[in-house]
Amino acid sequence: MTITSNTVRSRTDLCTAIENELGGLIGKRASAATAYGPDFARLWALAGQNVLGGKFVRPLLLMETYDALNHTRQENRPAESRHRETAISIAAAIELLHYAFLLHDDVIDGDLVRRGHANLIGSLLSEAGETARETTGADSTHAGSFLHWAQTGGILMGDMLLAATHQSFARADLPHDLRLRLLDLLEHTINETVAGEQLDVGLGDGVIAPDLQTILVMCGYKTATYTFELPLRAAATLAGADFAVENALATAGRHLGLAFQLQDDLLSTFGDPRRHGKDPFSDLREGKETAIIAHARTTVAWVDIEPFFGRPELSVGDGEHVRRHLSDCGAEAFVQGLIEEQMQAFNNQLTSTIPASVRNVLLDLAGQLEGRQS
Amino acid sequence: MTITSNTVRSRTDLCTAIENELGGLIGKRASAATAYGPDFARLWALAGQNVLGGKFVRPLLLMETYDALNHTRQENRPAESRHRETAISIAAAIELLHYAFLLHDDVIDGDLVRRGHANLIGSLLSEAGETARETTGADSTHAGSFLHWAQTGGILMGDMLLAATHQSFARADLPHDLRLRLLDLLEHTINETVAGEQLDVGLGDGVIAPDLQTILVMCGYKTATYTFELPLRAAATLAGADFAVENALATAGRHLGLAFQLQDDLLSTFGDPRRHGKDPFSDLREGKETAIIAHARTTVAWVDIEPFFGRPELSVGDGEHVRRHLSDCGAEAFVQGLIEEQMQAFNNQLTSTIPASVRNVLLDLAGQLEGRQS
Repeated sequence: MTITSNTVRSRTDLCTAIENELGGLIGKRASAATAYGPDFARLWALAGQNVLGGKFVRPLLLMETYDALNHTRQENRPAESRHRETAISIAAAIELLHYAFLLHDDVIDGDLVRRGHANLIGSLLSEAGETARETTGADSTHAGSFLHWAQTGGILMGDMLLAATHQSFARADLPHDLRLRLLDLLEHTINETVAGEQLDVGLGDGVIAPDLQTILVMCGYKTATYTFELPLRAAATLAGADFAVENALATAGRHLGLAFQLQDDLLSTFGDPRRHGKDPFSDLREGKETAIIAHARTTVAWVDIEPFFGRPELSVGDGEHVRRHLSDCGAEAFVQGLIEEQMQAFNNQLTSTIPASVRNVLLDLAGQLEGRQS
Repeated sequence: MTITSNTVRSRTDLCTAIENELGGLIGKRASAATAYGPDFARLWALAGQNVLGGKFVRPLLLMETYDALNHTRQENRPAESRHRETAISIAAAIELLHYAFLLHDDVIDGDLVRRGHANLIGSLLSEAGETARETTGADSTHAGSFLHWAQTGGILMGDMLLAATHQSFARADLPHDLRLRLLDLLEHTINETVAGEQLDVGLGDGVIAPDLQTILVMCGYKTATYTFELPLRAAATLAGADFAVENALATAGRHLGLAFQLQDDLLSTFGDPRRHGKDPFSDLREGKETAIIAHARTTVAWVDIEPFFGRPELSVGDGEHVRRHLSDCGAEAFVQGLIEEQMQAFNNQLTSTIPASVRNVLLDLAGQLEGRQS
């Protein structure tokens, strides 16, 4: 006998609904794209594969929050509302926005791989090389040109996904004032995310000083805003929740988002690479300015760490040496403390302002933080 | 005594109205940007300087066409309509779109200069260098990082301008069905422009074969669609023109746009650099696949041209040698013939379907093609 809880069943239903909506948004564009030739159509085909293979973290947060808010209002009646279909289309649009940000981030970072697989840019690069070998027998002499071609594809596909996100918001079947509130939210989100990306790049390029405060602001802007605050505020707006509820949700979401981001940094440096599947020293090799590093800089251990920080050729032995220093100097514990502070602030928001059913959605999400390995 | 014709006076008024609208759109965002720190605010300040220093070709085309269409409908009553303010906001949004495309194009091409001045990326690059020299005394050791920082600024500012364009379309004070038609038009325009940019880069990177048909399609998609078809169709939609009028305008605009683009290529290669102010051999040095080159490839002269084509270090003497060959082999005359064909097709559209007052707007624009030196 298989026991299927309501939560699991409803999450599967939600995933299907989100997947169908995304499939429609992308499928329609992929069909239209064929009129512009195979290379243009290939962009949409690759984007479709990548987007539809995602975990839908943001759309699920939006829909579960939306359904919980409606359930509260309607008590024991089924969780339905006249804006539910629109909520699904906004949830799907947020996934497109996420993917647009990822693509431009990958172009900016020069990344060709994401989670162990070729990203869109990596796929375009290898396909250009294969085609050249088949048609002309050429080998890697055009490697620079092919990389340029592939990264251009990343910029352009990101632009089209950003456009598609806006199209969904602009066409939302809602009273105009509600649509305007969602458009305000989208604009606010894009501004903060772009500001966060710029801070991140400025820190990496040595244009912005790497102090702890800047790094924490960057983490919040770059990821927490669009991953947590955007879906929560959109859900509240669509469900007609009070502004007090929306604000409490947004604040809780920002704290949770920052906790996730700080934990990402801890996992990258101190986690088990067999679990998270990434190069365990990539942050150190890249010279990524994290809260861990910001704290280490304030300790005497920094003189032993600095010579190895940002060295692409860092050996495993040197990496382990740096990691030990980062732990011994208290940087690991310091960031664990920051995460606890954020979780405390998150819990403080879960007062009666936020209905119990919605608190459960957030607590469920927060539960994923514990015991997370990747 | 100064004689001010109605045309000149109304164009000045239009420029002022467009400038005010753009100033408002950018000023509001530049103010909000200061909350995210000086580097983020700097992006908006630079974008504002660049956008407001433009010639407003596309917004003027939209507004002059819109006013002419209304004038026709309303005969001798003043050219007014309840959608005129919205038309100005859409016209301004189209200028933001133009600038978003330019920025991402500059990132893709690695350009730091446009029309003899540092573009946004060039400004960010030199400012990062200056700040580094002032604060640390460092010189060019971080040149690679600073270029990365500056180009990231170009990508991110392009994203924000693309978002701002959509915000203006989405918020247009219009009946929802009319707003949806403009949103369709925006989506169509972005698709064609992106497809054109991708073709252009594919031609340059040797991923797409440089045949004449592909090059002509690329020119139409990359520039003519958003520069001519978009403003003309938007004007027709906003003025409530018949679909037959809108289509005739769009077709005329595409032919005119292609003629302008082909003339750009002729001027770059055969024009007087004292007039157009550009490096007279930049297209040859970059190996730009133009209609001129596509024709030359089909002639016996190509064996004498090919060794010099796409060589960054091309000398003035060699450049002049190539230019002579391009002229002697008939490529110059061939492209002049293509321009004449486009102008013939343009003139064929100026039938009674398009009202006389609107024909004059288009003929005025076409007149700029003759005797153009830059």
